[in-house]
Order: sequence, then structure tokens, then C-alpha cells
Amino acid sequence: MNAVGVIVEYNPFHNGHAFHLKASKEAANADVVIAVMSGNFLQRGEPALVSKWYRTKMALLNGVDLVFELPYRFAVQKAETFANGAVSILDAACCESVCFGSESGNISDFYQTINFLREHKQPFEGNIHQFIDTGVSYPKAVSLAFKQLANSEKYLDLAKPNNILGLEYIKAVNEQKSRIQPLTVPRKNADYHDEHFSSETIASATSIRKAIFSKLDGKTEIDQYVPEPTKQLLKDYLHHYLVFHQWENYWSYLQFRLLHTTPDDLREIYEMEEGLENRLLAAALEAASFQEFMRKVKTKRYTWTRLQRLCVHILTNTPKKEMNNQLGTASYLRLLGMTSKGREYLNKNKKNFSLPLVSKLSSFKDNEILLDVRASRVYSLGVPNQLKNEMIKQEFTQPPIYIK
Amino acid sequence: MNAVGVIVEYNPFHNGHAFHLKASKEAANADVVIAVMSGNFLQRGEPALVSKWYRTKMALLNGVDLVFELPYRFAVQKAETFANGAVSILDAACCESVCFGSESGNISDFYQTINFLREHKQPFEGNIHQFIDTGVSYPKAVSLAFKQLANSEKYLDLAKPNNILGLEYIKAVNEQKSRIQPLTVPRKNADYHDEHFSSETIASATSIRKAIFSKLDGKTEIDQYVPEPTKQLLKDYLHHYLVFHQWENYWSYLQFRLLHTTPDDLREIYEMEEGLENRLLAAALEAASFQEFMRKVKTKRYTWTRLQRLCVHILTNTPKKEMNNQLGTASYLRLLGMTSKGREYLNKNKKNFSLPLVSKLSSFKDNEILLDVRASRVYSLGVPNQLKNEMIKQEFTQPPIYIK
Repeated sequence: MNAVGVIVEYNPFHNGHAFHLKASKEAANADVVIAVMSGNFLQRGEPALVSKWYRTKMALLNGVDLVFELPYRFAVQKAETFANGAVSILDAACCESVCFGSESGNISDFYQTINFLREHKQPFEGNIHQFIDTGVSYPKAVSLAFKQLANSEKYLDLAKPNNILGLEYIKAVNEQKSRIQPLTVPRKNADYHDEHFSSETIASATSIRKAIFSKLDGKTEIDQYVPEPTKQLLKDYLHHYLVFHQWENYWSYLQFRLLHTTPDDLREIYEMEEGLENRLLAAALEAASFQEFMRKVKTKRYTWTRLQRLCVHILTNTPKKEMNNQLGTASYLRLLGMTSKGREYLNKNKKNFSLPLVSKLSSFKDNEILLDVRASRVYSLGVPNQLKNEMIKQEFTQPPIYIK
Repeated sequence: MNAVGVIVEYNPFHNGHAFHLKASKEAANADVVIAVMSGNFLQRGEPALVSKWYRTKMALLNGVDLVFELPYRFAVQKAETFANGAVSILDAACCESVCFGSESGNISDFYQTINFLREHKQPFEGNIHQFIDTGVSYPKAVSLAFKQLANSEKYLDLAKPNNILGLEYIKAVNEQKSRIQPLTVPRKNADYHDEHFSSETIASATSIRKAIFSKLDGKTEIDQYVPEPTKQLLKDYLHHYLVFHQWENYWSYLQFRLLHTTPDDLREIYEMEEGLENRLLAAALEAASFQEFMRKVKTKRYTWTRLQRLCVHILTNTPKKEMNNQLGTASYLRLLGMTSKGREYLNKNKKNFSLPLVSKLSSFKDNEILLDVRASRVYSLGVPNQLKNEMIKQEFTQPPIYIK
């Protein structure tokens, strides 16, 4: 059985994702699709709209056959670390290819850009430093440095997060000496960060979330942009948990966490840079909401995403020493769900998996998974009081989702 | 001007307190009354019903002339540490006497008991250890050990918290070689922990709080037990802050704090004993309220009070190393409020105060006060969202209360 891997967040699963799945399967001529999906906290430093279990169901009902969790230590990270973790999981699960969506849809554009960057390493890095010295953020400096150097249309636009991710997937495959073949398929309309609807059936997850939060009675106008299972699962989630998750659900915890601590303590948190801790503490004293807090903290120097990730690490109490010990590549495959075809694949191939397969949390004792458990507990505190404990327990009691 | 000191919590100020003040002033033949009052968290490990500022007003409108804050590091502590801190403050503020209420109302009963304990130190301590080995709590073991040894009515009943406190005040005066004279006046009815009303005008603070929380519309039947200013100030507080403070207001923070941490981290908290951290973590996963949490954690070995104090230290993130560095006696006099007579006393005597007088937090840079600031911030998180920031700021902006 030939498996193609996809690296996803599905926050929530929409028509663009369905298109990507179909195109990936065709491009790879694959029998099964394996998704590595972020858990409850995402790359942009946000809680997922609904829990990983509901997002797993969305995936399985829409064409994915196996879902593995991208552990917290890779999921809430910059592109390079994110890609390294995700690729190592697909590799361990014996995928023959990984397929990502891109504007160009042409894998040679990525190799060309990688080669160009390799050949121009020194001037590129010099440019980056120059731009950083002007006070802009790292991602901005990278994109400006590249534009200055490679002023041609045959190279990728590094201002687009999807291109950065694609490049990092390929670099991860190379560095890990993986046999996985990188593939790309063209994306349909809708920019990654688009906040508004522009097409008739395809919209970005960002714009879908925005529509959902603007109208919390479940009767949002997102129906045309998401497949039926997503629509139904979002409805079920709201009915059961009474909320969708967003940063504001966690603001009181973040504020408490900042106010009951000391700057010395805060400096231990992963991604905390010298001086930033005092900025966060001062803002926590003044702000009455997460949005207000972020506006007070934000500077040109740090991207919104970078700051949000830092805030997630504060919430999950993730210290530098724990993260720095654990980066690199994944050390387990946490199975979140499977279809019957996915199960068949597992039965045929698991003996060749290069990492332990975790279906039941209680029978896996590796310390590295504790961070995922902690993140999941913290995520559970975003639902109303009477539902918290049920959700906290789910992390240990929920078997992998199975869809026939 | 002759000053008598009283050591109080006023949670809230009631008729029994008014009686104690009047009797203390007479017994000491004093011109002014100086109160050392616990801040926002109290000896039994609970948030105060209303903030220290409102309780200061209650004190000043009912006969106290000067209110100093008993710092957190003494306030949320067992009797010995509590007494040491409080006495050191009264001593630094040049009080000539300290007067506490007791059942016996006779200071010689206290000296007799102290002498008896000194003479029977070894068998007493032996007895305590024997009782602890049967699995009971330390306070219970102390009271049983003493009863076994001194089976006579001429000694105090060490099962009564008020007697323990009285003894510790006298021991603190002796150990600090203070010139303060200890005095006691008889208490009127109402036991310290009484949960029910038994007299027509005197009720314990515990029963008053119970009545308040059983009926949150402000129309409680406590009017006959509290002076008019208390009644009015409680009404004002509820009107302004919409809540009275109790542990349940902080449960979600405590649960979050426990769930986002590791056992190793928790072991750093002051008063955490080996093994207790795992018990707390397990209970936090299951409990849906603070009361339920406490019932799961409670054993014969630990008193409810002891466990609640530990929970306050977790909330305020107070590590062993910070507390152990700072015990002993007070290092500043934080002025919370004064009457005009209190101000006169200050002007005449402050040059003789043996500790720095802090009227404005922003002009005092001693690190030791940071724990009080942290405690006050955490306390502020017990009010509704829209009022938190106002209350957080008050700690720095509020000048001492002044009542003409």
C-alpha cells in the first residue's frame, strides 16, 4: 500500500483541504493518506477552534485514513522545527511521499529556491542581519533579504508562509536523509491569512474562524466553504461544549500566570527573550482582554505569531530546558484516529515503523509525551466549568477514533 | 500617647471585635489603638471576604486609630510565625502593650501554662510525637499531648486556637525581648469557629461569613451582629465589586496552576511536603470545585487549615526559598490607614519607629514587599473580569485610608 503524507492543522477542515487531499492522492498515486495533525495548540500560537478529537473526525470523514498527532514541541514552533517534527513522523510511518499545497504547484520552484539559497548563503544571511538591525521581525527580514538578492519571478515569494513551510519540508527530508519524496499541488484561491471570503466554495481557515466567532449561534454563513461533516461536527461541538476555543477563553489564566510570577521565573520559559518578560508583566497589569494585552506587547521586532506562541508556552509552563532537550525529530507516533483502510495499512506496516506507536496513553511511559498531556489539560480549561473535568479525562480515556 | 496593640483579621469586623477594642483600651489605659491586620489572605488559608482597604475602613470607623498590614509571610502561617511577625510590628511601632481576647481573660493562666510547658518540655514533645505517629495532625497532637500531661483546669485548653495564639504572642514578646506588656481581656460568647448564631449581638466571624454566603443579595440577617459601618461597607463592596471573596472565586486559577505544572515544580512551594504534590495533582484532575478538591485531598494527617494555606501559597507562587529567607520578624511597617488621632501618634512617634514606615508603595524598594504585592494581585483576580485591572492598580495608587 502506497501512502502519501500531509501535514495539517484542519482548524477547521474546509473545501480547500478536501481539494488538497484529493489532488495529493492523485499526484502520489497513493492508496492511503496519512495526516500529521497539530494537537490542541497550533503553529500560530492559538488554541484550536475545537479539540484534536473533533478535528480528527473531520479528517477521517473527508478522506484521511490515518491521523497522527504532531506533538506540542513541534506544533507550536517556527516553520523549521514544525517541519522537522512532521516529516520525521511521516518518515517513521513509512510514507512514500509528502504532498503540500503551494501557489506555484511546481516542486522544481522549491528546489530552485533551495539551491539558490545554498549558493548565496553568506550574502543572504548578511542581508537578514541588516534588516533585523532596522528593527523588523525575523520572518520579515528573511523575505526582504531574499527579495533583495533574488529579484526574479522564477524564485518563490518568501513572504508567503506556505512557501516557507514547503521549503522547510524539503529541507527536513534532505537533512533527515528520508526516502520520502516531496510533492506539491496547486492551492485553490484563498490566501493563508485571508480574512474575507473571496471565492464561492474555497475560503481560508482564518476567514472561516472569523465568521464563526462573529456569530456564535452556530448559524454562520460558512456552509458553502466547508464539507457537511465539518458543519455537523462544529454544531455538535458547540452543543456539547458550549464554546469554540479562542485566546480569550484563556486570558484569565494567562493574566493570573503572569501576575503570580516573577521576572526571573518567566525568563525560564521557552522563547522568552531578555527583557520581553518585563514587557509582558507590565501589559498584564493593564490589559482587560487578550487582544488588548497583545496590542500592548506588540512591537515591530516581534511578529504577532511569535508572541502568541510565547504566550502558549507560558500557559503550558514550558521551560527552555524541557524544550531544548527534546527538539530534533519525533520519538513516538500518537495515533488519533483511523479509517478501516487506515487500520489495514497499520496492520501491514507497523512492524516497519521506526518509532513506537501510541494508541493508549496509559500504556506509554515516555516522559516526552507529558508535554502533550499538559497542553491538553490546559486546553480543557477553555470550556465552561462543569465540562472541564470531562474534557481533562478524555486525554487518557479516548481510544483512537475509528471510522469504518 | 500610650498605644495598645491588637492583632486582627476583621473578616469582617463585628460586635465582638468592638467589644474587644473597648476592653483593650480600658485594660491598657491607652490613648490610641494600633491594629496589625492581615492583608488579603488570612491565617486559615482563605481570601478575606473583602479587600484589606475595606477592612481597614471598618477598623478605623470602629475605634482603631492606626492600621498596619501584617505581611503575607506572617499572615498565612501557623500561630508561631503569625505571632512573631505581628508582635515585631507592634514593637517597632512603639506599642506599650498588646491585648488579646481569651476565654479565661486572665493573663496569669497564660504564664502558668507557658511555665508548665517549659518545665515539661521533654515529656510534652515525646507525647506530641506519639500522637503524631497515630496519624493525627500536629495541632491535634499538641492538644492531646498537653491534656495527657496537664490534666487540670488551671491550665489552658490548647485545643482552642485563641489560646494557642495568646501563648504565641507572649512567647514572641519574650523571644524578641520586647518591652511590650501582654494583656488579655475576656471574650464575649461565640467560639472562634462557631458556625451558628448563639447570642443576640455577638457572633463569630465564621458564622457571619456563612450567613453572608448563604444569601448573596446583601439582605442577610447579620445586622444585629455587626456595627453599622461594617453593614454599610459590605453593602458598598458588593455593589462595587459584585462579589465577596471566597475560595471558589479562585478555584479555576488553582486548578490551572496545578494542571500546567509538574510534581518537581510543585515541590518547590512553601509548606509542600514530600508526596503531597501528587495528591494535589490527582485531586485537581477530578474536582469541579474547591470544596470537592479539598475533600479529596484531606486526610487525618493534615488539618483543613494547613492544606488551605498550602493552596494559597500555590496561588501566590511562593517558593520555599523565598519564605525561608524571610521569616523571623518584620522588616517594614506598611500603613493601611489612620484616624486623625492615629496621625497625631505617627507624627509624635515615627522618629522612634525601629522599622521603615511605608505609606506609598512606589517609594519603597525593599524586595521583601514584593510578596505582598503579588498576593494582592492574585487576590484582585477574584473579582469579575471588568473590575480586575482597577483592583490590581489600587495596590499602588491607594494612599493610606484617612478618617477624620
